[in-house]
Amino acid sequence: MKIGDLKFDSAGLIPAVVQSVSDNKVLMVAYMSLESLELSLALGQTHFFSRSRGQLWHKGATSGNTQNIVSILSDCDGDSLLVLVEADGAACHTGERSCFDNYEPLEQK
Amino acid sequence: MKIGDLKFDSAGLIPAVVQSVSDNKVLMVAYMSLESLELSLALGQTHFFSRSRGQLWHKGATSGNTQNIVSILSDCDGDSLLVLVEADGAACHTGERSCFDNYEPLEQK
Repeated sequence: MKIGDLKFDSAGLIPAVVQSVSDNKVLMVAYMSLESLELSLALGQTHFFSRSRGQLWHKGATSGNTQNIVSILSDCDGDSLLVLVEADGAACHTGERSCFDNYEPLEQK
Repeated sequence: MKIGDLKFDSAGLIPAVVQSVSDNKVLMVAYMSLESLELSLALGQTHFFSRSRGQLWHKGATSGNTQNIVSILSDCDGDSLLVLVEADGAACHTGERSCFDNYEPLEQK
């Protein structure tokens, strides 16, 4: 799969699952634009496109919790990415290591 | 996080990352509608909404490779899901265990 074969959505974004290579923990899900993907590959640290702020986002630029990229894989359809990273610090703005930490599982209503 | 607090997108969908509990492998990324999420919770097997076919999709109904749900977690923003499953068979329509298997990492152009 090449970058040109990826399927970005109508907003020009593709979902990216960030997973730690040290323990395979899923840290977060965010969105990449073509520009943020190319920056991620060029600079070796995760860059996303923030839908809420409508701008490019270098993960950790403010918090210091950058994520060093080991590899970026596409899925079979080319419409989602798996970003394998080395990340010692918190991925979540709450201070948790993973954005999926600290919440009770969903239950039937 | 409760189901009512989740943020479905303008198409009524939320991305769901499916991860194996046995080895923490990320198997696939798909989308759930509220209906498919409720069915997943009620029946204990993954159900998604197929964007390409525009319909509800019981994973494995055709292939036999169903995924038994251990838990479904929301992220901090309530706009993505992590679905922990027991799944012995292939998650991918190509026959691979994961949709992210068998592809070379993306490279800079």
